[in-house]
Amino acid sequence: MTSLDDLRRMVETALERSLPASAPEPILDAMRYGLMGGGKRLRPCLTLATAEAVAMRDKTPLGDARSRALPAACALELIHSYSLVHDDLPAMDDDVLRRGRPTTHVVHGDGMAVLAGDGLLTHAFALLAEGPAPADRRIRAITVLASAAGAVGMVGGQAIDLIAAGKVKSYPATPLDAETLQDMHARKTGALLRAAATLGAILAGADAATISAIDRYATDLGLAFQIIDDVLDVESSNEALGKTVGKDAAAGKPTYPALYGLEQSKQLAADSIARAKRALASARIAGLLPDIADYTLSRTN
Amino acid sequence: MTSLDDLRRMVETALERSLPASAPEPILDAMRYGLMGGGKRLRPCLTLATAEAVAMRDKTPLGDARSRALPAACALELIHSYSLVHDDLPAMDDDVLRRGRPTTHVVHGDGMAVLAGDGLLTHAFALLAEGPAPADRRIRAITVLASAAGAVGMVGGQAIDLIAAGKVKSYPATPLDAETLQDMHARKTGALLRAAATLGAILAGADAATISAIDRYATDLGLAFQIIDDVLDVESSNEALGKTVGKDAAAGKPTYPALYGLEQSKQLAADSIARAKRALASARIAGLLPDIADYTLSRTN
Repeated sequence: MTSLDDLRRMVETALERSLPASAPEPILDAMRYGLMGGGKRLRPCLTLATAEAVAMRDKTPLGDARSRALPAACALELIHSYSLVHDDLPAMDDDVLRRGRPTTHVVHGDGMAVLAGDGLLTHAFALLAEGPAPADRRIRAITVLASAAGAVGMVGGQAIDLIAAGKVKSYPATPLDAETLQDMHARKTGALLRAAATLGAILAGADAATISAIDRYATDLGLAFQIIDDVLDVESSNEALGKTVGKDAAAGKPTYPALYGLEQSKQLAADSIARAKRALASARIAGLLPDIADYTLSRTN
Repeated sequence: MTSLDDLRRMVETALERSLPASAPEPILDAMRYGLMGGGKRLRPCLTLATAEAVAMRDKTPLGDARSRALPAACALELIHSYSLVHDDLPAMDDDVLRRGRPTTHVVHGDGMAVLAGDGLLTHAFALLAEGPAPADRRIRAITVLASAAGAVGMVGGQAIDLIAAGKVKSYPATPLDAETLQDMHARKTGALLRAAATLGAILAGADAATISAIDRYATDLGLAFQIIDDVLDVESSNEALGKTVGKDAAAGKPTYPALYGLEQSKQLAADSIARAKRALASARIAGLLPDIADYTLSRTN
């Protein structure tokens, strides 16, 4: 059986080849820098793992499921990468370090970083549209991803975050309460993780009940992911995390450890992962998805 | 028959309703500001006019052609608007005035303007995916638009522009020669105008020869549009143009009037429009498309 590392290697190779070769070299350079800087590749692995898990359960060819899901896996990582490139801009989080490297705007300049993000986002939809899955599945995948990545999902979550940080001229800074914090995370991080998993299921031709179970799995995975992110922000060193540590707390952003304490936060994350696995079991789905759940809980960066 | 003003009104009404209502209010606010600030609506009108012209020639129902093209028309305007919002940012052109109003980042702040642009771009693909046209035409429309708007097209053109202006850290400022200038315009403005026209034809079910003729029409229309833009930048007042005048020349950007003189530039634009009309005639296509060509040549803002 495929391992999580196999999936990661498959994703890296596909990402290397995913950018539009006929674009002017300088913009390709900046896009490549934002895309190929390592990273966990969690979202594309989730897409591939879900497609494989559905094919294994339904006894349909694994190779078909994989090749149909691979463009979507790349699209997910392009969108995740673009969001980091834009999020790191001085006008947003103003981060100079990401995965242990200078951020895209530090290397290429702010304007080029805006464009590189725009290029990555736009090309994600080209990849989805051109994939080998049946046209109706590709259309549905585009609809789901556009909603998850856009103003209703990720972009909307970033807007809430930006307002809380007092960086929006037209709105007064609003400190986040626990409920708004959860809504922000659900949009900013959760929506794209859910899209990553459900796209794998959609492109593999899963039925509605399976897609819904996968969505519940990914929702709890996303929650655990965010809690662990906050925990690592408290417990890690800059070096281990590859980015500036303690920044959220310093910025006065509420975090799970700040709201619930470290130990209860870890318990909340473990509970989410247990629920995620139960959702998988309810649809008789496995493959690498339980491993990804365990990894999310135990990761150190 | 429909007039160009009828099309504009249809587009305005559809745009008002096009944004995702379930997004957080602040991001919707900023997206609406970037989208609903007037403007010529040339691209969406082009999409609708092309779809109608194909339906008239092929004697297929006009209402079907219009309703199938309308989401794409809105998508085109969302993408055009996002590109202006990002282009006006301090990190790019640093413009504070657009269509006679303060630009989005002046009102909402730089970070929110980045996000508003991201939200508009992403939602464009949601609109295209959800439209009433047959799935294979929608897929093709998404492929064409993603290529025209992305690093190969518009975003790539903006990158060339940014480098020429000396605003890219990783590349030395390169003065544009006539050839690179034309390549930049073909990507930055031309690609999206061509997509606007061809999407109308694709969604109306036009054959390959017709789509190719429409593409030639739009290529020459785009060239004329750019030349007239440069001419207006020399001849107009700030007030008439609704944006800062003479900025390109002041920034040392080569313009058509600078390269060829005012009179020869106007002749080049007129020649392009004549070629555009011949391309239409070769496919026995008319409707409002010749009017749009004339308008492009005679516009004053």
